[in-house]
Amino acid sequence: MNKKMGRGRRPGSPDTQEAIRLAARDRFLRDGYQGVTMRSVATDAGVDVALVSYYFGSKQGLFGAAMALPANPADLLEAELAGDPETLPERLLRSLLFVWDSPETGAPLRALAGNAALDPDLNRLVREVVGREIIGRLAGHLGTPDAPQRAATFATQIAGLIFSRYIFQFEPMASMSPDDIVERLAPSLRLALGPTLTASD
Amino acid sequence: MNKKMGRGRRPGSPDTQEAIRLAARDRFLRDGYQGVTMRSVATDAGVDVALVSYYFGSKQGLFGAAMALPANPADLLEAELAGDPETLPERLLRSLLFVWDSPETGAPLRALAGNAALDPDLNRLVREVVGREIIGRLAGHLGTPDAPQRAATFATQIAGLIFSRYIFQFEPMASMSPDDIVERLAPSLRLALGPTLTASD
Repeated sequence: MNKKMGRGRRPGSPDTQEAIRLAARDRFLRDGYQGVTMRSVATDAGVDVALVSYYFGSKQGLFGAAMALPANPADLLEAELAGDPETLPERLLRSLLFVWDSPETGAPLRALAGNAALDPDLNRLVREVVGREIIGRLAGHLGTPDAPQRAATFATQIAGLIFSRYIFQFEPMASMSPDDIVERLAPSLRLALGPTLTASD
Repeated sequence: MNKKMGRGRRPGSPDTQEAIRLAARDRFLRDGYQGVTMRSVATDAGVDVALVSYYFGSKQGLFGAAMALPANPADLLEAELAGDPETLPERLLRSLLFVWDSPETGAPLRALAGNAALDPDLNRLVREVVGREIIGRLAGHLGTPDAPQRAATFATQIAGLIFSRYIFQFEPMASMSPDDIVERLAPSLRLALGPTLTASD
């Protein structure tokens, strides 16, 4: 869509940025998360790879932008993993509820989740991204032999919250306050993670 | 599609049964769960209401048939609620995994869940049915002041299992054994229900 921009890190135009974003979206849906490189997207968009880095930073950043996500779930997880492990479930729940409850930031996430339940390409992409960036990352943080199972159980409960509150809007889950949800779900998330999280730090 | 059959309880033909099923499906999608009566479906199908009862028993039965469900989730819940409350989470999980894991009985359930995430009519219908037949029924069984919140938290975790294992197939959740899933999720479900379930019986 755009001509090659040369090797400089000049910001280029908003059109260039959007062309990269659209090229990335096509690539992710076609090749899956692992199959995409910053370089392949640059080639598709007809720009230098340095410009892709300049605009989007990393593959995670590019993915978030490609899917029009206002907040990258992997970045949110990473930020919370760096905090006090004692309060990880509460902080993750509050962070998730804040982003998904907001009409502006929640709408594209809801659209992605709903579409991904049915569209095969998007379904595969979400499976891969959640597997690598959420379950895999959390499992690496836990570090126990059963960390993948623990992380997957954690992700299962988060998926339940997303589909119950935002996609199906089951009552009273759809209208419960964030405080009430944190109070009811944090203990279950803590059970899923197990005692090793707090013991290891 | 079929002519009026008179007031007798004669079984009629397989065509008649299918005509009632299709009429019910249209009605449920158009009017929602509460808005549908056995009588309105009978009228749409051009049969006596007694024939609808003869084939499908109840509105729940008619709904299950209309949605081509091999097992009615509300009936499964009802059956397990009648058992030992101490082991309710384990029994419900095993029952759910058995039905959803099977290719024959799981396929239509997966199709319904995936489609309902996106299709507005189906989404509304699932919201209403889960609200009444799952969350409402479980809350009635619990009987505490916060029973709706507890039942909704329970349903949220079940929704998480369904979407994580069957719709998105997140690993390792998609390939974990039923035993492993029961071991990891039953304690969280028990937390959601609270101590009152076992104390009240």
